[in-house]
Amino acid sequence: MHPQILEALARANEGYAKAYGEDDWTLKAGGKFKKQFGDQAEAFPVFNGTAANVLSLQALARPYQGIICAKEAHIDLDECGAPEAITGCKLLTVPTLDGKLTVDLISQRVRGIGDQHRVQPKVVSITQSTEQGAVYSLDEIREISMFAHEHGMFLHMDGARISNAAAALGVSLRAMTTDAGVDVLSFGGTKNGLALGDAVVFLRPELARDFQYIRKQNLQLASKMRFLSAQFEALFEGDLWFKNAQHANAMARLLAEHVSGLKDLVLSRPVQANAVFACLPRAAISKLQERFYFYIWNEDTLEVRWMTSFQTTEQDVLEFAEAIRQSVS
Amino acid sequence: MHPQILEALARANEGYAKAYGEDDWTLKAGGKFKKQFGDQAEAFPVFNGTAANVLSLQALARPYQGIICAKEAHIDLDECGAPEAITGCKLLTVPTLDGKLTVDLISQRVRGIGDQHRVQPKVVSITQSTEQGAVYSLDEIREISMFAHEHGMFLHMDGARISNAAAALGVSLRAMTTDAGVDVLSFGGTKNGLALGDAVVFLRPELARDFQYIRKQNLQLASKMRFLSAQFEALFEGDLWFKNAQHANAMARLLAEHVSGLKDLVLSRPVQANAVFACLPRAAISKLQERFYFYIWNEDTLEVRWMTSFQTTEQDVLEFAEAIRQSVS
Amino acid sequence: MHPQILEALARANEGYAKAYGEDDWTLKAGGKFKKQFGDQAEAFPVFNGTAANVLSLQALARPYQGIICAKEAHIDLDECGAPEAITGCKLLTVPTLDGKLTVDLISQRVRGIGDQHRVQPKVVSITQSTEQGAVYSLDEIREISMFAHEHGMFLHMDGARISNAAAALGVSLRAMTTDAGVDVLSFGGTKNGLALGDAVVFLRPELARDFQYIRKQNLQLASKMRFLSAQFEALFEGDLWFKNAQHANAMARLLAEHVSGLKDLVLSRPVQANAVFACLPRAAISKLQERFYFYIWNEDTLEVRWMTSFQTTEQDVLEFAEAIRQSVS
Amino acid sequence: MHPQILEALARANEGYAKAYGEDDWTLKAGGKFKKQFGDQAEAFPVFNGTAANVLSLQALARPYQGIICAKEAHIDLDECGAPEAITGCKLLTVPTLDGKLTVDLISQRVRGIGDQHRVQPKVVSITQSTEQGAVYSLDEIREISMFAHEHGMFLHMDGARISNAAAALGVSLRAMTTDAGVDVLSFGGTKNGLALGDAVVFLRPELARDFQYIRKQNLQLASKMRFLSAQFEALFEGDLWFKNAQHANAMARLLAEHVSGLKDLVLSRPVQANAVFACLPRAAISKLQERFYFYIWNEDTLEVRWMTSFQTTEQDVLEFAEAIRQSVS
Repeated sequence: MHPQILEALARANEGYAKAYGEDDWTLKAGGKFKKQFGDQAEAFPVFNGTAANVLSLQALARPYQGIICAKEAHIDLDECGAPEAITGCKLLTVPTLDGKLTVDLISQRVRGIGDQHRVQPKVVSITQSTEQGAVYSLDEIREISMFAHEHGMFLHMDGARISNAAAALGVSLRAMTTDAGVDVLSFGGTKNGLALGDAVVFLRPELARDFQYIRKQNLQLASKMRFLSAQFEALFEGDLWFKNAQHANAMARLLAEHVSGLKDLVLSRPVQANAVFACLPRAAISKLQERFYFYIWNEDTLEVRWMTSFQTTEQDVLEFAEAIRQSVS
Repeated sequence: MHPQILEALARANEGYAKAYGEDDWTLKAGGKFKKQFGDQAEAFPVFNGTAANVLSLQALARPYQGIICAKEAHIDLDECGAPEAITGCKLLTVPTLDGKLTVDLISQRVRGIGDQHRVQPKVVSITQSTEQGAVYSLDEIREISMFAHEHGMFLHMDGARISNAAAALGVSLRAMTTDAGVDVLSFGGTKNGLALGDAVVFLRPELARDFQYIRKQNLQLASKMRFLSAQFEALFEGDLWFKNAQHANAMARLLAEHVSGLKDLVLSRPVQANAVFACLPRAAISKLQERFYFYIWNEDTLEVRWMTSFQTTEQDVLEFAEAIRQSVS
Repeated sequence: MHPQILEALARANEGYAKAYGEDDWTLKAGGKFKKQFGDQAEAFPVFNGTAANVLSLQALARPYQGIICAKEAHIDLDECGAPEAITGCKLLTVPTLDGKLTVDLISQRVRGIGDQHRVQPKVVSITQSTEQGAVYSLDEIREISMFAHEHGMFLHMDGARISNAAAALGVSLRAMTTDAGVDVLSFGGTKNGLALGDAVVFLRPELARDFQYIRKQNLQLASKMRFLSAQFEALFEGDLWFKNAQHANAMARLLAEHVSGLKDLVLSRPVQANAVFACLPRAAISKLQERFYFYIWNEDTLEVRWMTSFQTTEQDVLEFAEAIRQSVS
Repeated sequence: MHPQILEALARANEGYAKAYGEDDWTLKAGGKFKKQFGDQAEAFPVFNGTAANVLSLQALARPYQGIICAKEAHIDLDECGAPEAITGCKLLTVPTLDGKLTVDLISQRVRGIGDQHRVQPKVVSITQSTEQGAVYSLDEIREISMFAHEHGMFLHMDGARISNAAAALGVSLRAMTTDAGVDVLSFGGTKNGLALGDAVVFLRPELARDFQYIRKQNLQLASKMRFLSAQFEALFEGDLWFKNAQHANAMARLLAEHVSGLKDLVLSRPVQANAVFACLPRAAISKLQERFYFYIWNEDTLEVRWMTSFQTTEQDVLEFAEAIRQSVS
């Protein structure tokens, strides 16, 4: 976790506080969320990103309704079936190149409306930025939200890396969510410096009405809530969230610059946020993996993914870039 | 329903009987299932095919385990998300041409074994014959069951049309299931002449141990069970199941013969069981739909599906074939 | 099943019909339900009583909401946990003497409103007539529905024996449901002469909006729907439902009269509908069980329950009464 | 959180570590759990006590199986229906005086074995110490575990306050669990000094086989696991867990001593661990609530519950005792 988060935990550890979210830290954190997302926003801390996603969907859909998402989305691929098991909903997936949905792609799954044999699409879930490192523009989000709303669907955003996307676009969190028509957001804290903690943020407060029960029933109510809330408060204090993300993005660009043009290495995707994708020979990969921990993203194309974070130093990048250079030469 | 089924219902209506399956009809039906599938087989009547499929899967997998099936399978496409909502399991789908899985296709979803972020494949579900009218050979089933068992998975067969497949191949039900390594079968009654009723047939009895509770809890225990059991008994009596299926298949072939070679009409798939697939001009389809009820299977290719059944007469086929002829000319 | 139901099945077996409820029998049955319950009523046939109850509750409550019912209710006791497993809801039970709830009893479970650690009561479920043979008066139902609605809850009625209750009170089905404030009814067909089939009847149609998907997803959509619908149509034709129930009730009274006053036998509950409860010595029970099938309702008090039905003849009753007389003497 | 826990978090924040539990802190914490519970024990950190309970039950029972517990248990009363909603299982409750089950009480719910209409009891869940402050002796636990195992059931212990119970009895954690026949334990960390974190501890490792998937699917896998594991490590270091609990218990006894004998105040339950129960006049309660945060445990008897913790100082107790004295005089 970021040192300022640790400090916040230390400060939050003083004195007694009411349990289950009736404490001052939670009140203050709530205020800071409103400052970022608009006065109408209601934020609920939960323990991790899987929970933020699943509980968002649980709030928006009933079991006979479907969730449209990219086939490459984390909710389909890497959450051990949690969305289906907990919400009962089917995921209606569409293959994409870079994890980004478009109105055209979404339309393919808006089928069978009114047909009792088919789940009825109710939520579109997009990821900002995607697992593949791509960032939606504000216009792209707006276009999707309009389409979703016209078809009686909600727009959910998996924002595990939303801060990186905001830093990449140079826009506010509000511009990218509330103002772009997002209904519910999974706000990522863990990847951006927290010890643990993400949040479900309702950008339309009427959707939050029963959410306290959904959170509790789905095992996400912290008794000592202050230790989650204090972290979020610190993350928003002095725009730490933005600085952390900006730094991570800069480190990704730096890495890309340093390995660009190397023989036998292809930067396989544009560097938009904090991910660098590259294809390189298996021997080079193996050599690197002796010293660094990463795995092969795509075995067929020998594509790897390197992520940077608030913690990555310029020194880290230079050393890693040098190691890459040696491995491919 | 077939007239002999109606007669069986009338006969079963005489006198008192114990409820919930402790009656003579159920005992006798159980014996007839054993005769078809082997002495070890345990059959449990349920109300419909969706239930037979979902309860089979429920018996075989826990929510963190996955079900490998064709993307074109009924369980993925046409059961309003029932498998996910009721079992909690994720369906791991693979695109196929004709609804048939192969070991190669299945292998694509046997991934992430031991990875806690991924559902663990536990069941392979195949459909005999498929929604696309294709029939697995005994060898193909055996190959799949061997692969499944080698990888610690069960083989489930959706046999909504298993009788048509047996008639097509000219083999016994047992050869196609027990002897080919199928673990649990959804045995189709409704499509083959029953008023209503399908059955979950455990070909390995140890898998049936707790199934009575699964059936009851999932809303499938008939109090007046004799009215389900008597239908199955009648279906097996004098091989009615086979004759019905044979007849349906013959009618499909007859239809195919009569429309084969028509200008502007292409038989788009081989006729293996009781389905005829054809592509023809939209105007012709519309004209036919004025008199006959069917829908367009594939809007992109203007492919339609015509199903035959125990009830289809030669006269029906000839009239329909004539109408097709007129519509395309 | 009642002979007229069998005849209806035979008649429904003529010709082709569209599947999944788009047939004439279903249309007509829907009209007859409206005639009984009011024009606003929307009826959905399902396969059995467990399903009618569970799907009613599924339509009315989300997993974090609770269902208030008698501890003696069928949904708590005899459905193998189906309500919890399928709806995810907790049952908030209250002990009762005869299965009947009152406003006072219900109030005991309207607690913890707004407390995130508690499920929020959303449905009151009453049984008419109860498993213990007791019948709610119209006033009693009205009082409960008013209380439920005042507290933002729905009123569900498990009407597995609603016809017997209507016959007992001499009132219409509508008076006992729509006009008394019931929101959703499980209408019992199976116990009153059908081969199989019960119905979920929405008395407030806005609650039925998404029910077709709930029915399909929960394994209750019959493809050959006409065979369910035709039974309901026949049940309402010429008031067969009422005559069947009236007869069953009369047979219960007849039995009670014939065994009343016997030494060593106590009629333990008033005979209001089609159930007779009695306490008698274990030896007498055992002797009777050699010839007749029934079980001991309460082992502590040696209370037994004898049910009558449309099928019970005066002759049956007299023979059974005579056997009882001999067993206790 | 306890200062040593905060220090542990700070230490764990140094350097990089693998995610999802493949780090050194998790390895070491696992070793310390083994030291406490025996070499066979497998511990899985989760985020809170609700999760520890629900996931333990999920690992032990399928939806058609039942969980026997006290009607006063936390899992029935205060988890917003999470056990039912997530496991699908019914809770088979028994009223108790002090939250403690006995073999006699448990027997009341071991009914309907083999009856398909009834959920089949599979787990007995006891709480050590109970919400009512009562502590099971080793013999009592052993007797229950023997009964459970004889009837094919597992024994789960909700150990949210297990450390307090161990301190109260002066026995090891192993004596109270592994050696007494407990199968799975919810080990409480949060209430005993952690910022957040409880653990599911399998005392029979074969039961843990698929638990990593259950944990992930149920939203309880921390990516930065070291921050949970480091807390547990610190809790076991130098027997902090025991000292914290011992202190809390001592503070409860101290409070009881100081208010014992006061006019108008009755200590309503024996003080066995870290809870003090008292009945006192409503006016006194109201006066106290102006300065101290607690709620009325039982409105009928005006019983209140006062909990002590690792954090409660002698000074706190004396001040509070004095306030009580004034309030009742």
